[in-house]
Amino acid sequence: MARVGIYGATGYTGFELIKLLVRHPEVEIAFATARSAAGQRLSDVFPTMLDTPLVAVEAADLHAVDLIFTCLPHGTSELIPLVQTALEAGKRVIDFSDTFRLTDPDDYARRRGKPHPAPELQSAAVYGLPELHRAQIRQAHLVANTGCYPLSAILPLWPLEQAGLIADRTVIVDSKSGVSGAGRSLGMKTHFGETHETFSAYSVGRTHRHLGEMEQETGLHIIFSPHLLPVYRGILSTIYVTLQPGTTLAQARAAYTVFADEPFIKLLPEGRLPELRHVQQTMFLALGLQPVEIDVGRYIIVAALDNLLKGASGQAVQNMNLMLGFAETMGL
Amino acid sequence: MARVGIYGATGYTGFELIKLLVRHPEVEIAFATARSAAGQRLSDVFPTMLDTPLVAVEAADLHAVDLIFTCLPHGTSELIPLVQTALEAGKRVIDFSDTFRLTDPDDYARRRGKPHPAPELQSAAVYGLPELHRAQIRQAHLVANTGCYPLSAILPLWPLEQAGLIADRTVIVDSKSGVSGAGRSLGMKTHFGETHETFSAYSVGRTHRHLGEMEQETGLHIIFSPHLLPVYRGILSTIYVTLQPGTTLAQARAAYTVFADEPFIKLLPEGRLPELRHVQQTMFLALGLQPVEIDVGRYIIVAALDNLLKGASGQAVQNMNLMLGFAETMGL
Amino acid sequence: MARVGIYGATGYTGFELIKLLVRHPEVEIAFATARSAAGQRLSDVFPTMLDTPLVAVEAADLHAVDLIFTCLPHGTSELIPLVQTALEAGKRVIDFSDTFRLTDPDDYARRRGKPHPAPELQSAAVYGLPELHRAQIRQAHLVANTGCYPLSAILPLWPLEQAGLIADRTVIVDSKSGVSGAGRSLGMKTHFGETHETFSAYSVGRTHRHLGEMEQETGLHIIFSPHLLPVYRGILSTIYVTLQPGTTLAQARAAYTVFADEPFIKLLPEGRLPELRHVQQTMFLALGLQPVEIDVGRYIIVAALDNLLKGASGQAVQNMNLMLGFAETMGL
Amino acid sequence: MARVGIYGATGYTGFELIKLLVRHPEVEIAFATARSAAGQRLSDVFPTMLDTPLVAVEAADLHAVDLIFTCLPHGTSELIPLVQTALEAGKRVIDFSDTFRLTDPDDYARRRGKPHPAPELQSAAVYGLPELHRAQIRQAHLVANTGCYPLSAILPLWPLEQAGLIADRTVIVDSKSGVSGAGRSLGMKTHFGETHETFSAYSVGRTHRHLGEMEQETGLHIIFSPHLLPVYRGILSTIYVTLQPGTTLAQARAAYTVFADEPFIKLLPEGRLPELRHVQQTMFLALGLQPVEIDVGRYIIVAALDNLLKGASGQAVQNMNLMLGFAETMGL
Repeated sequence: MARVGIYGATGYTGFELIKLLVRHPEVEIAFATARSAAGQRLSDVFPTMLDTPLVAVEAADLHAVDLIFTCLPHGTSELIPLVQTALEAGKRVIDFSDTFRLTDPDDYARRRGKPHPAPELQSAAVYGLPELHRAQIRQAHLVANTGCYPLSAILPLWPLEQAGLIADRTVIVDSKSGVSGAGRSLGMKTHFGETHETFSAYSVGRTHRHLGEMEQETGLHIIFSPHLLPVYRGILSTIYVTLQPGTTLAQARAAYTVFADEPFIKLLPEGRLPELRHVQQTMFLALGLQPVEIDVGRYIIVAALDNLLKGASGQAVQNMNLMLGFAETMGL
Repeated sequence: MARVGIYGATGYTGFELIKLLVRHPEVEIAFATARSAAGQRLSDVFPTMLDTPLVAVEAADLHAVDLIFTCLPHGTSELIPLVQTALEAGKRVIDFSDTFRLTDPDDYARRRGKPHPAPELQSAAVYGLPELHRAQIRQAHLVANTGCYPLSAILPLWPLEQAGLIADRTVIVDSKSGVSGAGRSLGMKTHFGETHETFSAYSVGRTHRHLGEMEQETGLHIIFSPHLLPVYRGILSTIYVTLQPGTTLAQARAAYTVFADEPFIKLLPEGRLPELRHVQQTMFLALGLQPVEIDVGRYIIVAALDNLLKGASGQAVQNMNLMLGFAETMGL
Repeated sequence: MARVGIYGATGYTGFELIKLLVRHPEVEIAFATARSAAGQRLSDVFPTMLDTPLVAVEAADLHAVDLIFTCLPHGTSELIPLVQTALEAGKRVIDFSDTFRLTDPDDYARRRGKPHPAPELQSAAVYGLPELHRAQIRQAHLVANTGCYPLSAILPLWPLEQAGLIADRTVIVDSKSGVSGAGRSLGMKTHFGETHETFSAYSVGRTHRHLGEMEQETGLHIIFSPHLLPVYRGILSTIYVTLQPGTTLAQARAAYTVFADEPFIKLLPEGRLPELRHVQQTMFLALGLQPVEIDVGRYIIVAALDNLLKGASGQAVQNMNLMLGFAETMGL
Repeated sequence: MARVGIYGATGYTGFELIKLLVRHPEVEIAFATARSAAGQRLSDVFPTMLDTPLVAVEAADLHAVDLIFTCLPHGTSELIPLVQTALEAGKRVIDFSDTFRLTDPDDYARRRGKPHPAPELQSAAVYGLPELHRAQIRQAHLVANTGCYPLSAILPLWPLEQAGLIADRTVIVDSKSGVSGAGRSLGMKTHFGETHETFSAYSVGRTHRHLGEMEQETGLHIIFSPHLLPVYRGILSTIYVTLQPGTTLAQARAAYTVFADEPFIKLLPEGRLPELRHVQQTMFLALGLQPVEIDVGRYIIVAALDNLLKGASGQAVQNMNLMLGFAETMGL
């Protein structure tokens, strides 16, 4: 029985993580931290959950655990010292933020406009995408859980790129996400009156903070347009890609045999496209491939996943399973 | 052409009020105030609205107007001095808050646990329900726009009470409201993740702040359960009332002839109950009357209205029309 | 390993049932029937589900199973012969319809206006509410899964009734349900344009088809008002009950100790009321108890459950576990 | 006072049309037809609307009107004879279907796979887009109201094309529409359980029925991906266009001065993108222009409109105003 600790248990990803860990047969939760709810029990915050006590970060006993999950908001100043202390104590870490996802220091500096605040941690971190980096994740002490948007672009594009099928290096990714992706913090962007029964685009083009991950993992030049859906969970991305002229649907589909044994990737039959409801509350990334103009290589890919499961907390459990030597799908 | 000023133009009721006033043939907006958006134009906040400049409260020229609307959050400290100044300057005031709705000082003190902060204003105020107080509203200098929940209980119950048909003085009002009723302020109660695709009860029984209005206007003892719908606008109340044993449906319906000439009250035909979509974006309060057990006088009334129109900003325009001598339905 | 068959696999309750059974460690699905989708695989209908073949009712091999679930729409003519055949073949049956829920023939005849079509089956059936009839369910060959609305009234009221605390035999149950309760059939009542962003009451008073179950199990006289929420899953009922005058909150809460060991019933702490999101995707029925006027015994109970899980498919698995001798919470 | 008749009054576009016409100062509704609701009044279908009688098509008195609106489902066989009769009787016609939108017979035949069923009507019809064909609409006897999706692509692209700025003839239009676009007919695509809290793509690439209009009016080659939003009304399109390399934002924005006097087109300030809530319940098409990579001419345009108003019924009233010589914005 492995023992784990959770930093930031009362955000949306923390909640989902706890729900998964509670069902996991080989893991027990040693502590869970919260900021404003410290001192309460988890069931005080959400009555049908466990009575797990919520402690302040300082009160968490790092020595009682084998692995920690850090589910703190992007940019929290306490993250780096916490990760450092945990690694020094020989603990393994799965971090949910975007701090350690870019692996190249120069790339990080160029994209964020300043050098990485902890270069030695950055160089030790592994990008936590099991389908691409399974072997390294198994050995890693620090795993950077991927962004949810990036996943919806990387997994559909990587096999085509591996197969040498992508002709135009510029790919358009038009993504639509549920509101839980914005977290549980307050702000007009998550206010019911501004998000419900409406729809909007934001940070379109080349400005979104997680564009870098997509380009790092695919090697492509990506135009990325995120949109906010009036839905709680799920991401659906519509991807416009130009393959080698004349690429048949059979050839394009064949590229995905590289994922044939992946437990959580589902290439739909010809003619079907995934919908959010197909993947909500599941670990699947579902893919549909639509030829548009084969002579010029024009294809549309539609990819869907649950941003809180495959896109965050479920992925973290998948990574934990790899790191701790459990069956990869255990508890999922 | 009358000139009006709006204090608090960027909340949900302020927005709706401006949309109505823009279409009103006899009124022009002299100023609109905002707090954080002062200095911007209305179209900066909401791009398809007018370019009306938003000014700070101090910059609003009270002398340029005939009437002001105060759409400030409940309990704003600046309200009372503002109303006082306006009335002293001979301006008429329609206030959206619950400050002046209770007309009896003792009742106010008992319900709120402290005396009214401005008793002379309280005694001058008229409860702004045209269907019940039309004549006084015409003369009033200070009109207290009603609460949206109370409206959904008072208008259905008052005719039955007038007709002497109500046997049991205790009436149960089970109300369900869209989220816009909670305003545009930030809080977990209006966070998409806590309100969307869910449903909850709050302040049930005898604790809601606007219970007093309902009892003041109906003279009944009310058990009131508000609930939060995952919907933007609209209130639907299901009312459980015991009439005199044996009251027939025809007798009960006859009580509503007192509203026969009301432009905004719609008693549906026998067998029909109103739905939110019937009244959203309209000024109607729609009513359905369902006999349950006639021998013991048991009836259910379902009432629906748009909380932002008949329940707030539309009602304010109706009151303004009365106060300024325009046709009551003008611009509505 | 027990083997089960599912009649009606492609409705909403069928889907949920399959999702649960797939995770159940002691059960395998021997067949699943569908009408229009017969000949396809389950994954053709819903791509992230299993490749289970869907067969026509006639093609289902009843002899291959130990127990069947009949998830057919209310009133399907093929139900009774199917149940009869299954019972004669020594199979056990869990039926989702309302055909066998009323246990008294006279009560059935009076409420439905005609005698029961299969009186011998009716008399053999057990009302499938584990919290009240656990022992009989264990022995039963035919279990009538309960209605989802009735559950939300029976479980909150039964302990108070057992404790002799209910003073007024008439209880008001104001219920609000998500749209999945209306099933997957087409009709204006489930059309997006008529259900989304709106709210409505229907069959209020004493007319709803499942009122009988509530009264049968509680012995009370119930006024029942169902409403349709613009939400997919979940039921929340607000119950107005008059207890013995002077009943304290502690006394009222004590009545629920009868449920202290129930795995799926959660009485919330004082001052908390359940919300739909607390119970969606879970097996919990969550309860909050609010004293209103203790001197006259007036209380409000708020109860919430997931209509597809505790209210239908999860309950069916709970019943199956009892009937087949597994741990009651297995797979739930 | 002009008199108009409405064929198909009880669909979503019929409803919206009636709401507009009721407020229009120069028009009165002479008749309104319905199929299943014939014989009832409009208020029987929707209680807060007028008591206008609904008649069967055969009972409509064509001679009593100056102009008819045909709001019948796409492909209704009764449409062509109806239009023919109306035109022969000297009446003017505004048709909501896609029957008369393609103006070139060869184009029609190629895209639909068969010749036009009424070529003489086709050649007489004018494409009902006031911003492009105002003069012809004024003279037209038969106006083909545009599709709602096409509007969201044509209006943003046409000015750039007029200005000679579009470098790559292939443009990607990624559109998202509310469910009301699918009409009030029953089908799984409009079933609450399959559309609510989800999101999906359909007919992506070059297969959607209304692609032809977009290409006809813009002269461009369009890749079009429609998606279904869990929202009632509104369309938002994200358009990926490649302009002449080096085109500055100022140059691109200058192209839209051609629309400077258009009452219903709103180019948002630099840096702003429209959201659905900005245009819902309004006549506006709102546009935001985002430069992505100016050196290669890459731009993203976001366009939003209300599919039932500017995209259908409001546009019809705008066209009627032109045809009958009223001010173009009257009643809008």
